[in-house]
Amino acid sequence: MKFTKMHGIGNDYVYVNCFEESVKNPAEVSKFVSDRHFGIGSDGLILISPSATADFRMNIYNADGSQAEMCGNGIRCVAKYVYDYGLTDKTEISVETLAGIKYLRLQVENGKVASVEVNMGAPILEPKEIPVAVEESPVVNVPVEVKGKIYHMTCVSMGNPHAIIFMNNVKDLDIEASGPYFENHTVFPKRTNTEFVEVLDRNTVNMRVWERGSDETLACGTGACATTVACILNDKTENEVTVHLLGGDLKIRWDREANQVYMTGPATVVFDGEITLPDDIA
Amino acid sequence: MKFTKMHGIGNDYVYVNCFEESVKNPAEVSKFVSDRHFGIGSDGLILISPSATADFRMNIYNADGSQAEMCGNGIRCVAKYVYDYGLTDKTEISVETLAGIKYLRLQVENGKVASVEVNMGAPILEPKEIPVAVEESPVVNVPVEVKGKIYHMTCVSMGNPHAIIFMNNVKDLDIEASGPYFENHTVFPKRTNTEFVEVLDRNTVNMRVWERGSDETLACGTGACATTVACILNDKTENEVTVHLLGGDLKIRWDREANQVYMTGPATVVFDGEITLPDDIA
Repeated sequence: MKFTKMHGIGNDYVYVNCFEESVKNPAEVSKFVSDRHFGIGSDGLILISPSATADFRMNIYNADGSQAEMCGNGIRCVAKYVYDYGLTDKTEISVETLAGIKYLRLQVENGKVASVEVNMGAPILEPKEIPVAVEESPVVNVPVEVKGKIYHMTCVSMGNPHAIIFMNNVKDLDIEASGPYFENHTVFPKRTNTEFVEVLDRNTVNMRVWERGSDETLACGTGACATTVACILNDKTENEVTVHLLGGDLKIRWDREANQVYMTGPATVVFDGEITLPDDIA
Repeated sequence: MKFTKMHGIGNDYVYVNCFEESVKNPAEVSKFVSDRHFGIGSDGLILISPSATADFRMNIYNADGSQAEMCGNGIRCVAKYVYDYGLTDKTEISVETLAGIKYLRLQVENGKVASVEVNMGAPILEPKEIPVAVEESPVVNVPVEVKGKIYHMTCVSMGNPHAIIFMNNVKDLDIEASGPYFENHTVFPKRTNTEFVEVLDRNTVNMRVWERGSDETLACGTGACATTVACILNDKTENEVTVHLLGGDLKIRWDREANQVYMTGPATVVFDGEITLPDDIA
């Protein structure tokens, strides 16, 4: 099986061009290739295929074999793949995902995709839909007690729930000491992702993220979008924000008129490879 | 740069055939390729080159760019590489390392190397040479107090120091609670690797290892050798032992007459790849 290893600010997947390859047991293949000592090593497997309703289709499998609906860092890499490897010469493309069709704009330099803008859709602010069990709507700067300490959270869903906490100096934060307690707090019926955010100026923030089910990660695209919405709702920034994450930078813009959030960030090819899969999953 | 990703019971390196490729900045390349999110992902980089004094030469770079003298899991992969990729048709080869020339016997099945026996040399039992600051020589079943608890240790060097602790049920051991305290105990002037070993029968043990500077690892070849020597010195096993490690099995034999320890284990090709290195390290 030929593959390409790519990452979007450190969120890395094995990408397979299913115009040329067929993957019969994607859940098992994802588990096998994702192992960082015995396999290729990745956060999962992304298959790029033809679509009946969009230019391309992406299917995301996590490292545990489960399917993910959508991944902002992954879809940028899909855009880079289809352009750089000659599957399209368009710079505006649509990609079918389990979360619907997504629209992307490719920024090309020297014949290669350098960065990609993704329309991440409308933020969800209704507490029941996020979901978060509080009365206030929208959930802006609402106190919550976690491990005996009062924090003020702003809650936003980008298809998945986020609680944003503003603070000073996120670099020195002991995220393991509070992340799990936010994640599993009874106020979040479907648990939550938690973003710890330090505002640097009206267009720049530092963010660290505790991801539901994944602990701290290098990058979270929906988290950066939710953070930007929260910054704007709290009047801490303008409508366009550069979010510094551990894995790199994302530029997020909330178009208030259209009520759409746009994420722009890099996509990187690390290497091309070919692997012989074990017989029982090939 | 073309490369092959291989592992020996989970100890994984990026292997480069330097008969065909040249690597100008191996320390920097190792740091780059070893990163598990932004690079290929590995425990380090191993270069396979011509040797003036042996059939082949291996140079090992750790993930931090430092050089390692020798790696039992790595050298088996070198043997598989040179045979499977047609650099030799011999099944007994010599490999020059920073720890001297090592001699290997290749077990071939269906034209491919399935496992490799490595002569790991003589165990060192003299306390000063291990080094361990105790009077008894050899250091067999000697009490040592660690975090207020008395353990009984047997100490063996295979070029690097090992303290072997026999116990029941290593699977449930909280290795992080004691490993660091063994590692940095004042009785070990150069710190120590610590093996926690459960004897299953006269030819089989379970072993977990806390490696000096690396915490718990999936496998440690010299640790399995030292453990087998310790088992024999304590009359817990015969001279040939299968050691179950988290990453897989090694078969260790201590030839008492020749005073040489032989390690036999598998070597696995995961995939072949090609990577474009950043300009500043290429």
